[in-house]
Amino acid sequence: MNHDETGQSDQAFFQSRGFGQRIGFGEHPAVLVIDLTRAFADPAISLGAPLDDVIAQTNRVLDAAHAATVPVFLSVVAYEEPGFEDAGIWRLKMAGLSTLKAGSPGVELDPRVRRLPKDSVVLKKFASFFFGTDLVSRLTAGRIDTVIVTGCTTSGCVRATVVDAVQFGFRPIVAREAVGDRSVNAHQQSLFDMDAKYADVVDVEEVLRYLRRLRSGAGADSGPTSV
Amino acid sequence: MNHDETGQSDQAFFQSRGFGQRIGFGEHPAVLVIDLTRAFADPAISLGAPLDDVIAQTNRVLDAAHAATVPVFLSVVAYEEPGFEDAGIWRLKMAGLSTLKAGSPGVELDPRVRRLPKDSVVLKKFASFFFGTDLVSRLTAGRIDTVIVTGCTTSGCVRATVVDAVQFGFRPIVAREAVGDRSVNAHQQSLFDMDAKYADVVDVEEVLRYLRRLRSGAGADSGPTSV
Amino acid sequence: MNHDETGQSDQAFFQSRGFGQRIGFGEHPAVLVIDLTRAFADPAISLGAPLDDVIAQTNRVLDAAHAATVPVFLSVVAYEEPGFEDAGIWRLKMAGLSTLKAGSPGVELDPRVRRLPKDSVVLKKFASFFFGTDLVSRLTAGRIDTVIVTGCTTSGCVRATVVDAVQFGFRPIVAREAVGDRSVNAHQQSLFDMDAKYADVVDVEEVLRYLRRLRSGAGADSGPTSV
Amino acid sequence: MNHDETGQSDQAFFQSRGFGQRIGFGEHPAVLVIDLTRAFADPAISLGAPLDDVIAQTNRVLDAAHAATVPVFLSVVAYEEPGFEDAGIWRLKMAGLSTLKAGSPGVELDPRVRRLPKDSVVLKKFASFFFGTDLVSRLTAGRIDTVIVTGCTTSGCVRATVVDAVQFGFRPIVAREAVGDRSVNAHQQSLFDMDAKYADVVDVEEVLRYLRRLRSGAGADSGPTSV
Repeated sequence: MNHDETGQSDQAFFQSRGFGQRIGFGEHPAVLVIDLTRAFADPAISLGAPLDDVIAQTNRVLDAAHAATVPVFLSVVAYEEPGFEDAGIWRLKMAGLSTLKAGSPGVELDPRVRRLPKDSVVLKKFASFFFGTDLVSRLTAGRIDTVIVTGCTTSGCVRATVVDAVQFGFRPIVAREAVGDRSVNAHQQSLFDMDAKYADVVDVEEVLRYLRRLRSGAGADSGPTSV
Repeated sequence: MNHDETGQSDQAFFQSRGFGQRIGFGEHPAVLVIDLTRAFADPAISLGAPLDDVIAQTNRVLDAAHAATVPVFLSVVAYEEPGFEDAGIWRLKMAGLSTLKAGSPGVELDPRVRRLPKDSVVLKKFASFFFGTDLVSRLTAGRIDTVIVTGCTTSGCVRATVVDAVQFGFRPIVAREAVGDRSVNAHQQSLFDMDAKYADVVDVEEVLRYLRRLRSGAGADSGPTSV
Repeated sequence: MNHDETGQSDQAFFQSRGFGQRIGFGEHPAVLVIDLTRAFADPAISLGAPLDDVIAQTNRVLDAAHAATVPVFLSVVAYEEPGFEDAGIWRLKMAGLSTLKAGSPGVELDPRVRRLPKDSVVLKKFASFFFGTDLVSRLTAGRIDTVIVTGCTTSGCVRATVVDAVQFGFRPIVAREAVGDRSVNAHQQSLFDMDAKYADVVDVEEVLRYLRRLRSGAGADSGPTSV
Repeated sequence: MNHDETGQSDQAFFQSRGFGQRIGFGEHPAVLVIDLTRAFADPAISLGAPLDDVIAQTNRVLDAAHAATVPVFLSVVAYEEPGFEDAGIWRLKMAGLSTLKAGSPGVELDPRVRRLPKDSVVLKKFASFFFGTDLVSRLTAGRIDTVIVTGCTTSGCVRATVVDAVQFGFRPIVAREAVGDRSVNAHQQSLFDMDAKYADVVDVEEVLRYLRRLRSGAGADSGPTSV
């Protein structure tokens, strides 16, 4: 008999099984901003989602990251081939990828995102920020141990990036109010799944406190979780 | 206003936005069996889930694959380092990984799985069958274009593998009744997310019909979806 | 006592040991053109090499590939970050990477290369065409089994790409006169090493004959080497 | 006219062009021991090379690494599939791979290598220690920034590993006398190429001094090369 039948909540069940422990922040974070482009932030079109609050919360994280001179990497998705061949098999699944033509306005960063010129913008083609990009090399060469993840969508590129981050050996931290989705159900379940299995899902406030500690030179407190 | 507020179902919403189109089967499939080991198939212990039906359904797929001489790759998870260093950051998140000690009974394939000696068993350490393994090389060298995915858990290693499969350029097909999870909620939402964005989630019956067609030499019908 | 002491040639030694067997062409090739940009083709500057003949020979391969509608992927190297952070640790080794600033003329394809608009240009940051790019996904989604490699440098990005190609499960074919290097010694030894261990190094004429066979619909003859 | 025609040495030419600069040691090294198994260390058989001195020098590095509690990762190559399918396309090139059957004595670590039980042994199938393995995850989770490379062969798996190491963002250091090859020509040219383009090739003595500094707590001196 499992928890679904006993009425025990998933939260209680997974906790009792040792899921959802705290990874903790490391000492050298980077902020990842996933796909906050015009096409994804316009809820009226195919791939769009209502992201006004997500962008506002991401900007809070960005401001704190800039103040602490923490590196920032923003992903954008765009396809350069006339028949979207560079979307591979994926274009068979989602007709909406056709709104992501390189050079079109939809693939530009949403102008509300407070990117500084020094923040890196990286082109990706698929769900994970790590797939088909040089992100792992940038993080490793930069001695990053923690990735603070913001952007969209929670159940799509955010989750795929978080899974890769923990696989590659980084500490993934999801800034809860700074990630969003097209579907409330998908959003909430992915937050639950990620917190149980792959990442610490924490309030933006907690991220801000951490970044302020770094700024003040007090250093990160990763607790008893060193690897 | 989005669908969550309008009462429109997620299904209808995503369909109207061009998600969830059919990828279609290719011509050269392989079957992936994810993590059907004793530790995952024992619902009484940390990482376990109730998988009796999943194993029975996976066996139906395996029998058909064997009859059609379709290659089969089964993943197992085991950690060889005394302090589980080879689980990296992941071991900070899930205490249950400690039940996956190399050499312990839990990491063996569940004996009910009808693996043939010629089926390949591949050790992985993380969520995706592709991460840190030679799976992509095996599939490419073997000219595989389609991966039929079975095993557990739907919201964990199945989903991570499916995302990587489509990223790497393979057609991911999830055999619906042949994948399972610890949580009904997580299971159902991941089936929905995968079918909308990454894979065709189809009944086991449809997989069996496809494999029988291959066996009879009639070939696959990938429809109008060739890349 | 080894061959170096016995006077036996390396060629004879490696052959006697089972190295250097023929992989053979597959049925679905792509042509890779590695880094034939202005900076690499100008022998007067840091990273440059004398590549006039290499470009002429590559153009012969390109013409035949276009006639046979074989896909072509050309890599270029450029760095977008002001401090070349996207060159990672590599920029500590080679001061010449500073000539590869994104937007500068040096990172443009050499205008003599007969690229058609439909040929894909892919940005890479490191030695292998596969590293940090979506090349493997493009090849897999396109059902490619063979990569015909041209460009520069033989001991650098050509060799790194060839090693990755065979690792990923593709048949690497090096078009001998269509690859070049800054150093004759490095060039010749890498041709030897690649032919012994990773790729078939063949004359451009043999590549052209193969591409003509494909064009005529006669198909490839991969001989007894199917995997 | 290039250096090959002017009589200028390759060494002088590449130096004048900005190649071969010092990367420098980082602060958190690991030692990689590549493929020092019986099959590779027996010069009488297909893949073998005369490695007595290489093993002796590697042991000096290992002793110093152990004294400094620096992590050690040793690769071995073995194939588990009856038809060596897990060697993919590579088995078409090198008949000698058939001597690397899993379970056979040839795939065991050479007993002269002074491995401690805590040193990690990792199975790989291809040239690079990074390809198809979890090495990058182990290094990243372990906060490693520098890989000291030993083993064989210089022009094969050592070089492929070194190229991947710098691509992934680690500082590759080749311990000159602790790497070996079947061919003197291939060995010397790969040492030259690696030192020019990918790694610092240094004497074993320099590696030992570095490891002793780490042990004494004096820390590494990475000089002016921080990224």
